[in-house]
Amino acid sequence: MAKSVDSRSEYAIGVFDSGVGGLTVLNALRQALPEEHLVYLGDTARVPYGTKSALSVRRYAEQAVCALSSRQIKAIVVACNTASAMALEHLQACYPDLLVLGVIEPGADAACRVSQQGHIGVIATESTTNNQAYQKAILRLRPDARIRAQACSLFVALAEEGWHEGDLVEQIVARCLQPLLVADSQFPLDTLVLGCTHFPALRGAIAAVTGDDIQLVDSAQTTAEAVKCELEAKALQNKNQIRGSLTFLVTDGPERFARVATNFFNERIDPGSVELIDIQHYASEC
Amino acid sequence: MAKSVDSRSEYAIGVFDSGVGGLTVLNALRQALPEEHLVYLGDTARVPYGTKSALSVRRYAEQAVCALSSRQIKAIVVACNTASAMALEHLQACYPDLLVLGVIEPGADAACRVSQQGHIGVIATESTTNNQAYQKAILRLRPDARIRAQACSLFVALAEEGWHEGDLVEQIVARCLQPLLVADSQFPLDTLVLGCTHFPALRGAIAAVTGDDIQLVDSAQTTAEAVKCELEAKALQNKNQIRGSLTFLVTDGPERFARVATNFFNERIDPGSVELIDIQHYASEC
Repeated sequence: MAKSVDSRSEYAIGVFDSGVGGLTVLNALRQALPEEHLVYLGDTARVPYGTKSALSVRRYAEQAVCALSSRQIKAIVVACNTASAMALEHLQACYPDLLVLGVIEPGADAACRVSQQGHIGVIATESTTNNQAYQKAILRLRPDARIRAQACSLFVALAEEGWHEGDLVEQIVARCLQPLLVADSQFPLDTLVLGCTHFPALRGAIAAVTGDDIQLVDSAQTTAEAVKCELEAKALQNKNQIRGSLTFLVTDGPERFARVATNFFNERIDPGSVELIDIQHYASEC
Repeated sequence: MAKSVDSRSEYAIGVFDSGVGGLTVLNALRQALPEEHLVYLGDTARVPYGTKSALSVRRYAEQAVCALSSRQIKAIVVACNTASAMALEHLQACYPDLLVLGVIEPGADAACRVSQQGHIGVIATESTTNNQAYQKAILRLRPDARIRAQACSLFVALAEEGWHEGDLVEQIVARCLQPLLVADSQFPLDTLVLGCTHFPALRGAIAAVTGDDIQLVDSAQTTAEAVKCELEAKALQNKNQIRGSLTFLVTDGPERFARVATNFFNERIDPGSVELIDIQHYASEC
């Protein structure tokens, strides 16, 4: 008997980030699931989340999911490491009927898969690092892993300014990574998790500093794979053979969003197609 | 006959910024007006303002002034260049009974006073630069001035991270200032306005790049002088001879605020003394 298809299969996947960083995840989703309709929400009015408290990030994430769920949505991807670290379980509890996935578990999974020795470094925003979400997720998958984490908040500004490569960027990256690379030579890192969706924009500069012995992993691709798996498991995959639509929502500055997005997204975004929403009007269901 | 004293003279001065940058203005106020009570509000839940739209900055500024004016306040200093550029006139119109001052006019005044040739550069956030508030304020005071402006958003992140000096910081500063310093050698700059309250933290590195021929000015001291003048003119100065109190309010992360504040404020701030307020509860009177 053919597997039944959920009536929501043609609904969109909502993708949410504090700003533009989550577009690296949107790229991977677009590639893995070309037929899916994608609605991206960037909370540009309150970006960045990486230096804000758990309480604020949780409230912001609630409002974002509420705004997305007011549309025809079958799943939500929290494409922001900070919001995934601070708010994912909370959001999943608030929306039991909605598929809500984050980027931390897939990132931890990718790291555990590529790491030879289990000597794993994590670079992320200040809030994600303090929250230790990556450390916990990695240890759940690989209890013998040795993990070191380092906040690299400056990388967010570099990525948004389009400072992605070159000598000066590598010098800045080297200075930020120094504590991670020199600490405790008893267990030299073999893997480094780019634990912020902005960081893949600096991948080249980071690789130049870390060298060939350290594998870099980000969660974009593994998140897209996880979303694909879950949709299949729940018979929610869109079976249409035509390319899905792309919708962009922001909470501030559509023009700036479209401009800065070029640093993170593979397709051109027309500023006129970016819809401005007032997120404070969305009451939380949590 | 002795000049009458307004009954509000012992009320506090409210000082408002998006985060910690305005503490450079608070330092100057503390020095110029040691007997005044000061209430500082940092909107750390929505920092930074410098990459946000005029609409959002205006709404955030309205809520901040509303929160401050619910206390015993005789004057408000908008100690944030972006909010001064985007919202000052609007706030003054909304609160006609309150003395509301910004940092742009005093900064422009300082620049015009020290500039020999009237060849003035302005570095600021993206929003302040786009708004051209400094250009307009300088030209009002000195119509023959020639002005060049450059957004240096990266300096905010450097200042907050405590990257204030050293070779690498100077290289970053040099790269950011390059378009300003090489453009149009017909009129080499003689003065550079630090048009963001974060930038004085990088003054040493900026001076190392610009050299002795360019005078650096920031608006902290001239803003404090302007506040002093206005209080005197309105008989609102506190005549008590004892040192005024300091109160800190933030909209997110009191601990982080107290920690990062050490990069900008001369006195130690006890995290326990920083009060967290929910700014969204303040309805605007505008």
